Amino acid sequence: MRLRVRYTECDPMGIAHHASYPVWFEMGRTELVRDAGVTYRDIETLGAFFAVTRLEVRFSHPVRYDDEIEVRTRLERATRVKALHAYEIRRDGLVTTTAATTIACVGRDGRPREMPPELRRAMGLEAD
Amino acid sequence: MRLRVRYTECDPMGIAHHASYPVWFEMGRTELVRDAGVTYRDIETLGAFFAVTRLEVRFSHPVRYDDEIEVRTRLERATRVKALHAYEIRRDGLVTTTAATTIACVGRDGRPREMPPELRRAMGLEAD
Amino acid sequence: MRLRVRYTECDPMGIAHHASYPVWFEMGRTELVRDAGVTYRDIETLGAFFAVTRLEVRFSHPVRYDDEIEVRTRLERATRVKALHAYEIRRDGLVTTTAATTIACVGRDGRPREMPPELRRAMGLEAD
Amino acid sequence: MRLRVRYTECDPMGIAHHASYPVWFEMGRTELVRDAGVTYRDIETLGAFFAVTRLEVRFSHPVRYDDEIEVRTRLERATRVKALHAYEIRRDGLVTTTAATTIACVGRDGRPREMPPELRRAMGLEAD
Repeated sequence: MRLRVRYTECDPMGIAHHASYPVWFEMGRTELVRDAGVTYRDIETLGAFFAVTRLEVRFSHPVRYDDEIEVRTRLERATRVKALHAYEIRRDGLVTTTAATTIACVGRDGRPREMPPELRRAMGLEAD
Repeated sequence: MRLRVRYTECDPMGIAHHASYPVWFEMGRTELVRDAGVTYRDIETLGAFFAVTRLEVRFSHPVRYDDEIEVRTRLERATRVKALHAYEIRRDGLVTTTAATTIACVGRDGRPREMPPELRRAMGLEAD
Repeated sequence: MRLRVRYTECDPMGIAHHASYPVWFEMGRTELVRDAGVTYRDIETLGAFFAVTRLEVRFSHPVRYDDEIEVRTRLERATRVKALHAYEIRRDGLVTTTAATTIACVGRDGRPREMPPELRRAMGLEAD
Repeated sequence: MRLRVRYTECDPMGIAHHASYPVWFEMGRTELVRDAGVTYRDIETLGAFFAVTRLEVRFSHPVRYDDEIEVRTRLERATRVKALHAYEIRRDGLVTTTAATTIACVGRDGRPREMPPELRRAMGLEAD
């Protein structure tokens, strides 16, 4: 997924603020399942939501306002409830940032639940 | 209500981004009803939500990172469904920004509905 | 310009928060001049920045997470220092929101200055 | 430092979005040095800026709109260039989130530089 760094995503140093990155990772996850024919919006109508339980980011190089960046998202591992993703932000081929998240499927009540089969299939997991 | 301008609320020019202001106005509205003993959170549990239908802002002077600012919020007028608020942002007594909003009460379905009596009372409107 | 509503741009009501819109309008302005071969980033290296001095928005219909929306931006009028833009947000052809802004060109010191000729030309204004 | 969760910091699930947390941690760092009589704003006028190079967060429990939360910030370790902080978010005494960051001092050019002595002293480090 490619996107352009917004003015509001940058801070007085003129570089993208570190709190902008989790938003981009979330967009990466969204597009990853959309590519497989499913949207989180549909998944939410099934009563399945996702809570981020872990976020780890290493920032090596800054990105700036109006830079076009690439967000690479990869599903690393998944159980019936959790999924681990890894991310790379690249600018002109240079890896500026790497990250990892764990997300857990929860119901409307916030309690852990199994991911809907539709999503598991979209993630390339068997959903028997 | 007083608050301190956050680093992320500022843009590469080093001044608070104009999209930060509607957030402060919303906080001003929140504190206004809290002072009257009601919270929007409680109101939401009654199935009443608020949609901003109009926003007007005049920016005269910038505010900067770590400035302590004052948000003055006043209820201008209200009907059973809508409320008009006026706002002033001040920094060291200087009015830097003035604004006005119209908010409309909507139900969970997004359709207009009357404000709950609890809120009308907190707003100083008779709620008979 | 088309964009997809991000999860973080939505509030607990599940609709795009009204503070998300000024960010989209700013992106609309950015793309408008980019289409004419100029970027605000380049303009900033010339020591010319833009301060929003007026923002007016009318919200008629909400937009939701993952909606694909269209941001239509039009330069309404410009002087040597100021520019007025008008905006429409559309979702599936329906105009959900209209807005207007006034931006003023300022120098690094925050004082009004003339827009650089490069920008005036990109805006379709003669820059003699 | 205590703060109240803002409406815009929450997502359609009604809980604070995970991208809101790094902003709170940054506020925690800001207040930590302010308590020692120094502000990051002053430090920036000395040409010293801070880049977050690592961010790690564990989310155990959600926090919601209008919750009053406590952000506890502790300097864990510091060298002449880097500082490691640890954070806890608490709601009614319950630790909902723990986090750690590494920040590196950089100059206006983005290159690593030593922290100004004023800041090292404020951090409780000898600054001879």
